[in-house]
Amino acid sequence: MKIAVLGTGMVGHAIATKLAQLGHEVTMGSREATNPKAVDWAQGEGHRGAATFADAAAGAELVVNATAGTATLEVLASAGADNLDGKVLIDVANPLDFSRGFPPSLAVVNTDSLGEQVQRAFPGARVVKTLNTMNCEVMVDPARVGGGEHDVFVAGDDDVAKAAVKELLASFGWTPEHIYDLCVIAAARGTEMYLPLWLSVMQNLGNGDFNIKIVRD
Amino acid sequence: MKIAVLGTGMVGHAIATKLAQLGHEVTMGSREATNPKAVDWAQGEGHRGAATFADAAAGAELVVNATAGTATLEVLASAGADNLDGKVLIDVANPLDFSRGFPPSLAVVNTDSLGEQVQRAFPGARVVKTLNTMNCEVMVDPARVGGGEHDVFVAGDDDVAKAAVKELLASFGWTPEHIYDLCVIAAARGTEMYLPLWLSVMQNLGNGDFNIKIVRD
Repeated sequence: MKIAVLGTGMVGHAIATKLAQLGHEVTMGSREATNPKAVDWAQGEGHRGAATFADAAAGAELVVNATAGTATLEVLASAGADNLDGKVLIDVANPLDFSRGFPPSLAVVNTDSLGEQVQRAFPGARVVKTLNTMNCEVMVDPARVGGGEHDVFVAGDDDVAKAAVKELLASFGWTPEHIYDLCVIAAARGTEMYLPLWLSVMQNLGNGDFNIKIVRD
Repeated sequence: MKIAVLGTGMVGHAIATKLAQLGHEVTMGSREATNPKAVDWAQGEGHRGAATFADAAAGAELVVNATAGTATLEVLASAGADNLDGKVLIDVANPLDFSRGFPPSLAVVNTDSLGEQVQRAFPGARVVKTLNTMNCEVMVDPARVGGGEHDVFVAGDDDVAKAAVKELLASFGWTPEHIYDLCVIAAARGTEMYLPLWLSVMQNLGNGDFNIKIVRD
């Protein structure tokens, strides 16, 4: 599949690389087509290229938002609503605001979420919030912790889009019983608001190599 | 130990009953000493009695806040700062605001938490936030889900108080490897902000009989 990964940070890099390994035609999108990190990434074997946010999105069937949460709406605007229209838009960003240092606060919270903001701003996009509750190494390789016995959440209003995303997650190594469909995009509030707990646990453990599992029965 | 459990709801009832079963002298505190739910509870075998918030706290060595989060500060004020001074105050409340229906929002969030508000309002109390990330049946009987293979968080600024709380948690059935000390009371932000995710999962599963486990390595 032709996929645009918007964002050249650790998360974008990890997801773009994994998708390319899986045989997808991946373009890394950034503000400038000459972004050194994107250009460098594009040299990798099987990596399709680097492009502006708009060009990357225009040429893609599916778009991954891996930008900083506080930049997301602006980035997607520059990608262009027309280039997102009708496409599955996987949103892995968290609206972490580091302007007051660590720990960050959330720039949108409680009665709204970044996932919902994105869906409202781009009503033609089929937004699915997922993978934002763990670090990027775990996102693309769940088996690296606890043999993959932990969970990922999916939130979105479009069932067909969620089915496509679940398939992609399965190709990353997420087994069906570990994919929790929280239904509506409004459930992004919960997965984004989990971040402060994730950060506390990360500080406590000294690293981000963990994830949560829903234990029941 | 002489323990006051403030709050006559499901959470207060479950914790007071468990503590009494464990041999503690438990008084259930409520607004009026004649509160029917508290008086009814006080009839139970080994249950010490019902009293006002102030009388319950005055006679206790340890106090449990199991009131609704939006009422907590007012309840503790009526319990009296003097009656909390120097005592371990276990805060299990969540600041859930149901005024706009379900799902609730959080009345305090992001850059502050109920746990911190309580500690600031009652600086002489030794506040420990814990157990607020699960339903009350699981709080007092972790083995009821997944053989107890899931985790509880502890947040507070007083190490001696936290050690006492961990001992109490152990008596409930929580094994040491499942008790995560998130250090400072400010970590209550994370455990309280986890609630929207808990509520989403609860809706998804159809019941609250679950808890999360931190999976690593």
